[in-house]
Amino acid sequence: MSKNVLYQYSVMSALMSGAASSGVPLSHILQHGNHGLGTFKSLEGEMVMLDGHMYQMKSDGSVTPNLERDHSDWISPFAMITHFEPTITTKVTFSSKSDLATKISALFPKSQNYFLTFRIDGEFQQVGVRTVGGQLNPHEKLTDVGKRQTTHTFPSIKGSIIGFRTPEYFQGISVAGDHMHLISEDRKFGGHLQACEASGEVTLSAATNFHFNVEFPDHDEDFSEADLVVDHEGIQKVEG
Amino acid sequence: MSKNVLYQYSVMSALMSGAASSGVPLSHILQHGNHGLGTFKSLEGEMVMLDGHMYQMKSDGSVTPNLERDHSDWISPFAMITHFEPTITTKVTFSSKSDLATKISALFPKSQNYFLTFRIDGEFQQVGVRTVGGQLNPHEKLTDVGKRQTTHTFPSIKGSIIGFRTPEYFQGISVAGDHMHLISEDRKFGGHLQACEASGEVTLSAATNFHFNVEFPDHDEDFSEADLVVDHEGIQKVEG
Repeated sequence: MSKNVLYQYSVMSALMSGAASSGVPLSHILQHGNHGLGTFKSLEGEMVMLDGHMYQMKSDGSVTPNLERDHSDWISPFAMITHFEPTITTKVTFSSKSDLATKISALFPKSQNYFLTFRIDGEFQQVGVRTVGGQLNPHEKLTDVGKRQTTHTFPSIKGSIIGFRTPEYFQGISVAGDHMHLISEDRKFGGHLQACEASGEVTLSAATNFHFNVEFPDHDEDFSEADLVVDHEGIQKVEG
Repeated sequence: MSKNVLYQYSVMSALMSGAASSGVPLSHILQHGNHGLGTFKSLEGEMVMLDGHMYQMKSDGSVTPNLERDHSDWISPFAMITHFEPTITTKVTFSSKSDLATKISALFPKSQNYFLTFRIDGEFQQVGVRTVGGQLNPHEKLTDVGKRQTTHTFPSIKGSIIGFRTPEYFQGISVAGDHMHLISEDRKFGGHLQACEASGEVTLSAATNFHFNVEFPDHDEDFSEADLVVDHEGIQKVEG
């Protein structure tokens, strides 16, 4: 598998529309890389993958580790993953998610039309994460599931942020802008990153993705019947 | 190479914005399939590929054959190609492009969220094709190049139509709807298909593409500086 080829299963608009009751086994997702994020059947929590290991971060605050070993037959309705080989590794500081976005843009000038993959390791403060707790019925929309999301805040936490930057013109296919999931160093806490600042210098590694490969759900009524309009505001609200 | 994986070089919005002075060699495109369409550096004509052979259809009405043999170092700023293995082959009749679209939809129910690849062989009448004749300057937009396009009509012509159907939510990445290039059986005439009806029964073969792989131009200032807004009306006008 070539490095930094970004693979995605399904599209964000399908997930937004509530198409989350079927998908592919985690073992299938993990064939495409070692670094990524996503979700699980019925939107049961947040998925994060780093160093080839996959974790489920649930709304009760717990984390299930080693899914690739113990639960490779579980299914995912949406995931993004790559064989991450950073072309840049550097120390940075940042005071907010938007400041982080500015720092990444400075490292990759003229990259607004490309996907980027990144990872940040270090100590963070004023951290806010959320986790979705699953659909109440098979077609519940992500914006509605998001209304019941659990949020956790950490004054200070050591860990890793796994992220992808999607160019604006791919909104709806993926999540335009920076989409990040955080997991603590001890792999006991984490979620979809809502707010964060660096506690001093942290290590940022990143690469451009010149290949973006989408796999569409096959024999999946949820997907084939979904009304895939791009809900820009909805995506910003639930994934911003 | 897996069958029916749809590979695309660059994105339609980049071509619309006039990013057409660089690209990849035709030999690179042809690694990804035997059936496709696209254009050439500076929008010099229409590209069609069938049975592994590539042709350039120029605005003066001429066709240059066997590009894969004679001009594999020429470059393309945009192309779509697949190793086409139809899952359906059948006889159809149709009275217009929109009637053809209806017939294809009937063969692939609930396929509105998928890419389709198709080919039609037979005799056609009331055929209208157009060919773009190239940019007057390196950044001329496709809508402006299109204003000088040459159109040819054929009361009757034997040949092949090479087409892709792109779902609406991929507008701007590709060309939403049915995008077709026609080439005559003697490989002497052709272009982007604007109008057509079948002269009696013709053979339609088609398949769903469950994988869509985009390669983004690397080290390409045209692409990296392009303003990739989705110009729905513009794309419909020039590619409809």
